[in-house]
Amino acid sequence: MSKGFLLVISGPSGCGKGTICKELLKRNKELVFSVSATTRKPRKGEKEGVNYFFIDNKKFEDMVKNNQFIEYAKVHTNYYGTPKKFVLDQIDEGNIVILEIDVQGALQVKKAYPEAVFIFLLPPSMDELKNRITGRGTESKEDIDIRYENAFKELKFIHEYDYFVINDDIIKALEEIESIIIAEKAKVKRHKTIIEKIIP
Amino acid sequence: MSKGFLLVISGPSGCGKGTICKELLKRNKELVFSVSATTRKPRKGEKEGVNYFFIDNKKFEDMVKNNQFIEYAKVHTNYYGTPKKFVLDQIDEGNIVILEIDVQGALQVKKAYPEAVFIFLLPPSMDELKNRITGRGTESKEDIDIRYENAFKELKFIHEYDYFVINDDIIKALEEIESIIIAEKAKVKRHKTIIEKIIP
Repeated sequence: MSKGFLLVISGPSGCGKGTICKELLKRNKELVFSVSATTRKPRKGEKEGVNYFFIDNKKFEDMVKNNQFIEYAKVHTNYYGTPKKFVLDQIDEGNIVILEIDVQGALQVKKAYPEAVFIFLLPPSMDELKNRITGRGTESKEDIDIRYENAFKELKFIHEYDYFVINDDIIKALEEIESIIIAEKAKVKRHKTIIEKIIP
Repeated sequence: MSKGFLLVISGPSGCGKGTICKELLKRNKELVFSVSATTRKPRKGEKEGVNYFFIDNKKFEDMVKNNQFIEYAKVHTNYYGTPKKFVLDQIDEGNIVILEIDVQGALQVKKAYPEAVFIFLLPPSMDELKNRITGRGTESKEDIDIRYENAFKELKFIHEYDYFVINDDIIKALEEIESIIIAEKAKVKRHKTIIEKIIP
């Protein structure tokens, strides 16, 4: 029996990690999406345990106190966190858990759970990154500038990661991540009983 | 500029490493085969610098003294060795060098050059391994028994390797090794200047 692992897909705002993770899960049915816990109210169509675990402030703060998150953050007035138990249970069952997260979150994960596999997703160029951030059309000029500045600063944390993938052509980026998954599955250290596979 | 690496493809007698390496080099023109030095005479059709570097005993022993081999062994009356300079020059130029070698040799490489990437090739079963060793039809019953015993003992060294690949279906095994190559190329540690790729 081999153990699974946590695959952290991360990168600055505008690198395309959301789309990459969605496609990755669509193409690889054996991957498990890491479901976050949040204190914000469910939006229309969001399902408990699928999109999020919806919990109240009291419960969230108790879980923080009891060290039950791999990482968490407060965004505006709401908490978001990655419950440790969900991830570790899946890994014990041999599953590969995908965690889509920003750079600050990934650095927290690295401290709490360094055994995870960390992929830094890069935009093809900083100009393209600016286009992508601007292209959303949902943010003010000031917000865009802040996002761009942050993205720029976050690049230097790439050396904390195991792998980097440039998200220029999405299919190429997906295939590269899928190769990383195949390679990680073939690591000797994940299998205590390889020899037993071939000896009767 | 990114550095290449040495990919060691190894495993017990009968695991199919010769065929795998030949196909791997055929399918991936950017891979470089590690050419061994030997003191044995060239066979018909063998080319200097392609199949082997053919050198005399004196030269070989000098190279051993001067620590110019990553590994070497004496088989019957002939020496075989992997010249360090050839491999390191290729890696500096950004190339991926394939070294096909038995388990004892791979363990020597691991000591001399632990930065290499080590793949242990496994037969689908020990019965199949015995079939493959027997099937060559070139060896006595005694030789076959010795090879099989050695193969069995060598399995326990799998934990010195980074990856394992089961050579059941050759195409599947090749694709798995190709995924490992893609993943290793995407490792952050191999690139000192990733960020420069995307910043003008």
